[in-house]
Amino acid sequence: MTLFKEGEYLQRIEKTKISMSKAGVEVLVVSDPANMNYLTGYDGWSFYVPQCVVLAVDEERPLWIGRGMDAAGARHTTFLDEENIIGYPDRYVQSLERHPLNFVGDRIRERGWGSRTIGVEMDAYYFTARSYAELQKSLGDARFVNGDLLVNWIRLIKSDAEIGFMREAGVIAGKVMSTAIDRLQPGVRECDAVAAVYQAQMSGTAEFGGDYPAIVPMMPTGEKTSAPHLTWTDAPYQDEQMVNLELAACRHRYHCPIARTAYLGKNPPAKLVALAEQTVDGLNLTLESIRPGMRAEEVELVWRRHIAKAGLEKESRIGYSMGLNYPPDWGEHTASLRPGDTTVLQPNMTFHMILGMWMDNYGFECSESFRVSENGCETFADVPRKLFVKG
Amino acid sequence: MTLFKEGEYLQRIEKTKISMSKAGVEVLVVSDPANMNYLTGYDGWSFYVPQCVVLAVDEERPLWIGRGMDAAGARHTTFLDEENIIGYPDRYVQSLERHPLNFVGDRIRERGWGSRTIGVEMDAYYFTARSYAELQKSLGDARFVNGDLLVNWIRLIKSDAEIGFMREAGVIAGKVMSTAIDRLQPGVRECDAVAAVYQAQMSGTAEFGGDYPAIVPMMPTGEKTSAPHLTWTDAPYQDEQMVNLELAACRHRYHCPIARTAYLGKNPPAKLVALAEQTVDGLNLTLESIRPGMRAEEVELVWRRHIAKAGLEKESRIGYSMGLNYPPDWGEHTASLRPGDTTVLQPNMTFHMILGMWMDNYGFECSESFRVSENGCETFADVPRKLFVKG
Repeated sequence: MTLFKEGEYLQRIEKTKISMSKAGVEVLVVSDPANMNYLTGYDGWSFYVPQCVVLAVDEERPLWIGRGMDAAGARHTTFLDEENIIGYPDRYVQSLERHPLNFVGDRIRERGWGSRTIGVEMDAYYFTARSYAELQKSLGDARFVNGDLLVNWIRLIKSDAEIGFMREAGVIAGKVMSTAIDRLQPGVRECDAVAAVYQAQMSGTAEFGGDYPAIVPMMPTGEKTSAPHLTWTDAPYQDEQMVNLELAACRHRYHCPIARTAYLGKNPPAKLVALAEQTVDGLNLTLESIRPGMRAEEVELVWRRHIAKAGLEKESRIGYSMGLNYPPDWGEHTASLRPGDTTVLQPNMTFHMILGMWMDNYGFECSESFRVSENGCETFADVPRKLFVKG
Repeated sequence: MTLFKEGEYLQRIEKTKISMSKAGVEVLVVSDPANMNYLTGYDGWSFYVPQCVVLAVDEERPLWIGRGMDAAGARHTTFLDEENIIGYPDRYVQSLERHPLNFVGDRIRERGWGSRTIGVEMDAYYFTARSYAELQKSLGDARFVNGDLLVNWIRLIKSDAEIGFMREAGVIAGKVMSTAIDRLQPGVRECDAVAAVYQAQMSGTAEFGGDYPAIVPMMPTGEKTSAPHLTWTDAPYQDEQMVNLELAACRHRYHCPIARTAYLGKNPPAKLVALAEQTVDGLNLTLESIRPGMRAEEVELVWRRHIAKAGLEKESRIGYSMGLNYPPDWGEHTASLRPGDTTVLQPNMTFHMILGMWMDNYGFECSESFRVSENGCETFADVPRKLFVKG
């Protein structure tokens, strides 16, 4: 029932244990849903209650600990045996007297790991301040260290099987973007264009369906293009306006984000057309420059030098590692294409390179999701790199 | 630009300050995105980076503190003046040397609040263990107390304007459920049925569009009905199977969840038909019993006594407060319809009552979202309460 072969999970666990040893972590409590999935296969919308995977350096297999009613989901989706799947009683849910992390602490102590060095993901989304306080309370003899991003860094290089799902996400992403561009018209309500995008994301292709992306569709227009994380309204799109499309597709939790800009009207301003050309040239040039062995910061430098010729600059990073994830973010929070990032590119690292150029009252963005290949890079979606003009 | 009048936000803030005084909290750091929205109007998909609203007992207006690029979104959606909207520089994002909560701590100290009693939402989803540790590090002289759910309890009673949005969500929810039931057929892939649900959720009605619900559509069938939080697959629905539909609609972040069960086939088993009748009778009876002044536990008792007559029992709670929310949950984590909950029902409290009865290899669920009214209750969606048989 698992998505990958058992051997692949065991390899991931082996790599994690090597990182644990280097960091002096004897027991790692993994709360990030993507890391839980990566190590065991667990996949469910249950991260709204505390849950974790607990991995000890001297055990081959981790424990899955979650809410009792989700143990059935763990049996369906993980490679773990019954004895490694532990559900906590519902009286731990949303209680002031007890907390699921007390239950986790008790299970850790029970196994004789109570005075070990415990790694916790200090900045993982669903590992709350109280989760940490309660775990410390239940494990008074343990030493706690920060195990944040430890598994995320292992996720950086994908297996061929993972790349397979990202290619499928790429095929869906192409359909999603062309659906969005087809649907965009002056007079169409933003919510109706978004509805069509969702439809395309989930129905996928005749061969395979889609999964929910970790971020909702972003299709801002007008004034709101300057406020990048506002979601849609009921307002109709207007004539002679730009629309930024920040979309994605997902397949078995593996993402392919893609961004484009569209102009609703026959005559886009000349300065927008010029900016689009500069940006697309820079994107092409930067993608063509990629080779395994380069440092992440060197990729950014190719882009920066290109736009400097046009007298432009861009402050923020131009890309980041991504792949397997859950809401609220598809980014992996590890390598970024930015100055100072010395990560050496290797085959099957996967990035979203997003070039957004924002001027005072106009802008253009264009992105590609890609893997570093053996001698260059392979993009996942097939969408023309240009300003889409809907006249 | 705000969704509610400024006076409504100021009232909510007044109520919060009263609760703060009772709890001995002088400065409250609000990280829950729903609570941030409730107090200021802020609405954006930016909770994947740390952000908060900071409210001092002796200030009329709170501070919004978030990522620099999201300050524009705060200007669009909140009632706050420019001086109360503070963006942190991007060098705080995903850095090992500094954290956005250090920036928050500095702003608190700058205002002379550094040695006060600070309330933090210890178990809020996006307030991580590191967020708390960094805030403590930056505010060495402060005393910290748990301010968890303090704002959530104020959200329990909705204003008439909030109820207006929940009624609109109810209209959309009716369309969402009928779309799902129309689309369900043996041979239809799960992902295609889910795609139609998403389409209906976002396109809403001709008068108003929909917003993204805090939980994805759940439409499990077959074996997976026993694993409640697994999401969809590409597999086609089968003949002679039950499908559980746990769906919702959302309007301006206000939810109307709704659940039903469908049977794909002409001849549902007699025991399923009987269970559906018992459950629907119990739901009707329980809803009819609701009056302001009752305790939450008394509502549950009506249901429990009803099904006891049929020799049945249900272990978990039968409902919970809900309304304004963000992923990963639409529940408010306050009042529940369950034994021991002595919350006294008042007009404009809003609940999702969900009756799920699970036998060994079959089950039935039926739910309603409602407000407590002046003399009973008002349900938001209009969907027949029955087992849907698709022969």
